[in-house]
Amino acid sequence: MSFRQLWESLLPVGRDQQTGGYQRFSWTAADLSCREWFMAAATARGLRADTDRNGNLWAWWEPATAARIPARAGAVVAGSHLDSVPDGGAFDGPLGVVSAFAAIDLLRERGFAPARPVAVAAFTEEEGARFGVPCLGSRLLTGVISADAARGLRDASGVSLAAAMSAAGAQPDLLGPDDGLRDRVAAFVELHIEQGRQLADLDAVIGVGAGIWPHGRWRFDFTGRADHAGTTVLADRRDPMLPFAATALAARAAALRHGGRATVGKVIVVPGAVNAIPAAVRGWLDARAPDQEALRSVVDDVTAAANQAAADHGVTAAAARESFSPPVEFDPGLRARLSGALASGGIKAPVLRAGAGHDAGILAAKVPTAMLFVRNPSGVSHAPQEHADLADCETGVSALAAVLAELAAR
Amino acid sequence: MSFRQLWESLLPVGRDQQTGGYQRFSWTAADLSCREWFMAAATARGLRADTDRNGNLWAWWEPATAARIPARAGAVVAGSHLDSVPDGGAFDGPLGVVSAFAAIDLLRERGFAPARPVAVAAFTEEEGARFGVPCLGSRLLTGVISADAARGLRDASGVSLAAAMSAAGAQPDLLGPDDGLRDRVAAFVELHIEQGRQLADLDAVIGVGAGIWPHGRWRFDFTGRADHAGTTVLADRRDPMLPFAATALAARAAALRHGGRATVGKVIVVPGAVNAIPAAVRGWLDARAPDQEALRSVVDDVTAAANQAAADHGVTAAAARESFSPPVEFDPGLRARLSGALASGGIKAPVLRAGAGHDAGILAAKVPTAMLFVRNPSGVSHAPQEHADLADCETGVSALAAVLAELAAR
Repeated sequence: MSFRQLWESLLPVGRDQQTGGYQRFSWTAADLSCREWFMAAATARGLRADTDRNGNLWAWWEPATAARIPARAGAVVAGSHLDSVPDGGAFDGPLGVVSAFAAIDLLRERGFAPARPVAVAAFTEEEGARFGVPCLGSRLLTGVISADAARGLRDASGVSLAAAMSAAGAQPDLLGPDDGLRDRVAAFVELHIEQGRQLADLDAVIGVGAGIWPHGRWRFDFTGRADHAGTTVLADRRDPMLPFAATALAARAAALRHGGRATVGKVIVVPGAVNAIPAAVRGWLDARAPDQEALRSVVDDVTAAANQAAADHGVTAAAARESFSPPVEFDPGLRARLSGALASGGIKAPVLRAGAGHDAGILAAKVPTAMLFVRNPSGVSHAPQEHADLADCETGVSALAAVLAELAAR
Repeated sequence: MSFRQLWESLLPVGRDQQTGGYQRFSWTAADLSCREWFMAAATARGLRADTDRNGNLWAWWEPATAARIPARAGAVVAGSHLDSVPDGGAFDGPLGVVSAFAAIDLLRERGFAPARPVAVAAFTEEEGARFGVPCLGSRLLTGVISADAARGLRDASGVSLAAAMSAAGAQPDLLGPDDGLRDRVAAFVELHIEQGRQLADLDAVIGVGAGIWPHGRWRFDFTGRADHAGTTVLADRRDPMLPFAATALAARAAALRHGGRATVGKVIVVPGAVNAIPAAVRGWLDARAPDQEALRSVVDDVTAAANQAAADHGVTAAAARESFSPPVEFDPGLRARLSGALASGGIKAPVLRAGAGHDAGILAAKVPTAMLFVRNPSGVSHAPQEHADLADCETGVSALAAVLAELAAR
């Protein structure tokens, strides 16, 4: 099966007919369909497929017995994730999984015989769209989040991860670090659509990841007093919408000041009536920066602005860090081997630093890890318009195949 | 049955156990329970009860035949509404309906024999909390909104008013102006909890309404471009959250500048993900002012700020007026009779002007109309904490009885 056929077989799953975007949230019906798709792709290739204790999917291409030198050589793993943000694009995540299967197809067509296992992986809830913690599957695998903390996470409807897994036929009591599996991985390579325009600006199709910016999510709770919008005089109001608004504007200003990025993309207003002053407004800040000091400056500035605006309006403000990912440097030796393999294959591959988190960023703390990026002409991501040319994606498959051949040859 | 017993019999209906607030939205189960309560209260008093073609409830106390002089004398109607804003208080609306029944009880205890019909009315969807148009029942009755426009209104789940009425066993095909019923009403008096602290500051229990400020609802749609929160450089963003935030702050500033009131209490963010720049943000402005010129200035200023902020961020902005209520002056002759009756009863009753819309404001265009207000010590309304002392409410019943006696005596 060609890359295009495999790609197209996944496209309809979880796609919103109205927006064209994807709603693939972990342990929902759409997610279970993605998991079935993964198992079918593995089975069609004669790859042994299994689901680890944290719900991550694996498909194993084992070397012929005679070629196993040394015995139990660590595996070379390629993959990404299948879940999406609300109304996300088709490429963010799935491109890495489809490309990994397609790269194995390409290596087999060429008669390549791996000296160590090659595997395809798809990690659970990379986006954190349902339970709020991004890279949940890779965090659980590597013990960055405890099983108890994960089981207790709740979605917007109050359903816990444990309940969602049980309802989907999975076993939440098995959640937890999996050192045995982790130790079998000698290297992890995540191919991903670029989520900016660096490659387009450099006129390159493929990039090699150098590392990931530190980033995190902060929740701001503004608590005021619900009241009538028509009759409450301005001086008596304790309206939490006003400090929320000031905070959203302060976030952009702070990002500009410190060379980072800051976004307020989600807000909940209680009670949310046109003619009622809100009782409470909860907003979320997504902040990122090239280094931890700059990130701290962004968040400190936003927090100070939130507190000041809240005080100005008689509202209480509370800020809480919901997740944090320190900066990641991918393994220098592995990166050098990737760049060498791509150069040998005639593929120009400039080095990029990513503003987005990825499972590769979590795994990098425990396993030699690297990333490949595929050009995104508009730079748009996390939106239905996210796009990469299929010809560029096929170059991505060739690049990944070259990398896997380099890493699995001995 | 005393006022307190009747009041307490309604309290549990539609109350949210978590917040203590009310979720009484038209044609829901809670609303149908309120309607049953109304019918039971009428039946217990031997009042003929019916539902008009627009879903408004009426309970009629007809004069003894011998007393009917002149024949078909216009009715004196007291009442308010039973629906609530999301998480509203117990008093806004129901106090006027319960007080009307209790005032009839009081008049009967005193042996009062009306010379014209006295009725209790409860209008449908006064808050506009489900279908977006406040005073929907009184607007339909008086023809201010067309039946077709009303039938097509949709709630947040996309359910039309027609479908909601049909599901509740009502007949949406009957909706429309009801001149026959309207012509039977000689005067309408709405008793309501005050939604500010004017009476408390004046050390008075009861107030007489002079009129209602002009007010309305405006919807602001900001359309930007969904994108990745981590990877999209600031200069490339078209983030609609930023002009929305600027608009919310501009609303407060404009209200302050022009002596009006402006509130942003509801916002919808699409897609609403922490790590995605929104594609669109829709916010609602509730604006009110002492006169139309001041109101126009508030809305013009907010619209100009929205357009400027949208242009600054590469976002499109569109403003649409969703509803508008011109200023209301209550009938001077009726007000004078109210004030006279209260003075005769020894009830001090200063004159207030209301910032909130009421069914009385809609009916005032067609029927002599007046309002009574009951003291609200904190001024809080549209919130679970909304409160009036029951002793004050009982004074309200006495005041309303005095007014009905004055109006129905001949």
